[in-house]
Amino acid sequence: MQGKIRQLLSDIQTGDYKALARAITIVENSLAGYEELLLGLGEGEKGKVIGITGPPGAGKSTLVNALLRHWVNEGKRIAVIAVDPSSPFNYGALLGDRIRMNEFYNNPDIFIRSLASRGALGGLNPKIIEITDVVRQAPFDIILIETVGVGQSEVEVAGLADCTIVTLVPEAGDEVQTLKAGIMEIADIFAVNKADRDAADALYANLRIMVHQKAGAGFEIPVVKTVATEGKGITELAAAIDTFFTHAGAHKEHKLQLATEKCWQLLQAERMKNFDKVFIKQKLNDNIGKAGFNLYAFAKELLATQPVN
Amino acid sequence: MQGKIRQLLSDIQTGDYKALARAITIVENSLAGYEELLLGLGEGEKGKVIGITGPPGAGKSTLVNALLRHWVNEGKRIAVIAVDPSSPFNYGALLGDRIRMNEFYNNPDIFIRSLASRGALGGLNPKIIEITDVVRQAPFDIILIETVGVGQSEVEVAGLADCTIVTLVPEAGDEVQTLKAGIMEIADIFAVNKADRDAADALYANLRIMVHQKAGAGFEIPVVKTVATEGKGITELAAAIDTFFTHAGAHKEHKLQLATEKCWQLLQAERMKNFDKVFIKQKLNDNIGKAGFNLYAFAKELLATQPVN
Repeated sequence: MQGKIRQLLSDIQTGDYKALARAITIVENSLAGYEELLLGLGEGEKGKVIGITGPPGAGKSTLVNALLRHWVNEGKRIAVIAVDPSSPFNYGALLGDRIRMNEFYNNPDIFIRSLASRGALGGLNPKIIEITDVVRQAPFDIILIETVGVGQSEVEVAGLADCTIVTLVPEAGDEVQTLKAGIMEIADIFAVNKADRDAADALYANLRIMVHQKAGAGFEIPVVKTVATEGKGITELAAAIDTFFTHAGAHKEHKLQLATEKCWQLLQAERMKNFDKVFIKQKLNDNIGKAGFNLYAFAKELLATQPVN
Repeated sequence: MQGKIRQLLSDIQTGDYKALARAITIVENSLAGYEELLLGLGEGEKGKVIGITGPPGAGKSTLVNALLRHWVNEGKRIAVIAVDPSSPFNYGALLGDRIRMNEFYNNPDIFIRSLASRGALGGLNPKIIEITDVVRQAPFDIILIETVGVGQSEVEVAGLADCTIVTLVPEAGDEVQTLKAGIMEIADIFAVNKADRDAADALYANLRIMVHQKAGAGFEIPVVKTVATEGKGITELAAAIDTFFTHAGAHKEHKLQLATEKCWQLLQAERMKNFDKVFIKQKLNDNIGKAGFNLYAFAKELLATQPVN
């Protein structure tokens, strides 16, 4: 390992935000030292990676703010990785404005970084995995991954977190049965936000039945009611997170699942690095509409001509 | 091409549902004739592929039912591809029950097929692309792709449709600004469902401003108010879809985008076919926790040992 990269990693471990920001930039832009940096990463510090996900309108950002306030008051140090929406048709980043986190931007206990959810080649931006692992090297108590999007990346991002909070609102009640399997696989904790609304009790009751059925005689996924705009239920939610991390039972299997998912994403990024969508589009433009054009034959030919290295 | 596969394709073109179902099964399970079938696909019939997407709670399924009723009354023939949620941690399918489409299961003008949204290797199930192309060979007027999920596949599925309807509900209003870029890229038509609710007018007005800003002097994405449970606004929505397909302007570029996305997914499925998550997990289980374990070094080694063919 280069001396410079070793120094950078050691600076990150002492809590140097500038070093951390520099390391993230190296990863984000694949600058010199990128590979050495990744290969030099250790197991990481104590930081617990918490993902917050849920449909648009569930009040995720208000919930994030309320949790940040709670943890800052407890003297915790927190990194926030805000994953912004970008579509498969968009080859760059779409960094949303983060006005709603303004109150924390100058707080020395909070480190905030925005990332685009999609990589240049489609699929979950593999840099998110790598950057999360870099942030794990720093002495944060909590690493919060927040997704804001039409929904493309929620589940994939859930694959990065040690603990995933699924936020739902009373309005989602009628679809919960259909969603059952999908969200039960992802959620470590449910937050029923906007719990002061009429349908909240019904959703809460439904979720409780679902988690009870799933748990059998084992550990039940907690369901917590919150009204994030008023700070209600936040203490309870933070307590549920703490309990999750002290509950060691399912933890090893969970870590293994995460590592499998991460590894698969890394493999995919590597195997697909020679396929550029702009290039594919250009080649298609030259061929589509010609008599006898067949996409499957076209893809087959492309695979044969692009080497793997 | 084998005589049997040629016969199957020709039967599909005459509108034989049994032949279509058989072809889908061949694709779904990679049975004998799978590759010949794909390489034998033509440009397809007149069927317009329409995707319906939106967050949970937006009333997508009620909207789909209302549209089906409308089109059936107009004498149209429709295929419905229902994409069911499955998570990256789940290696199989999670076919939700489709009670809500019961009224159409025995209608001779409607063909319904459910598919799992995730492939065995993660990412959008590449079979969805292939099956949609098979269904395009049959003489349907409309091929409707409906997603039901926590949100993982909405955007990816939008990449399959000729025309994508994004369904929103008044409650989403406060997040629309943040979502702006993401949904503006996907939507060909906006449906503001549950438009009898208080906040509907504000959401409608916001969307109108957004589509106007985007359009400049060009074509504006239509915004249609619906109350799907009462069948309100459905005629207007169907008319907006018709208008979209007669508006040829942006159509060629749109088709090219779609083909690029489809091609990329096909390439990915092929390049990753030698990586099995179960195998990765097993190898990780043997190595994780060992002193000096580094996921990036592990992935690098795996890439070197798995051939590409």
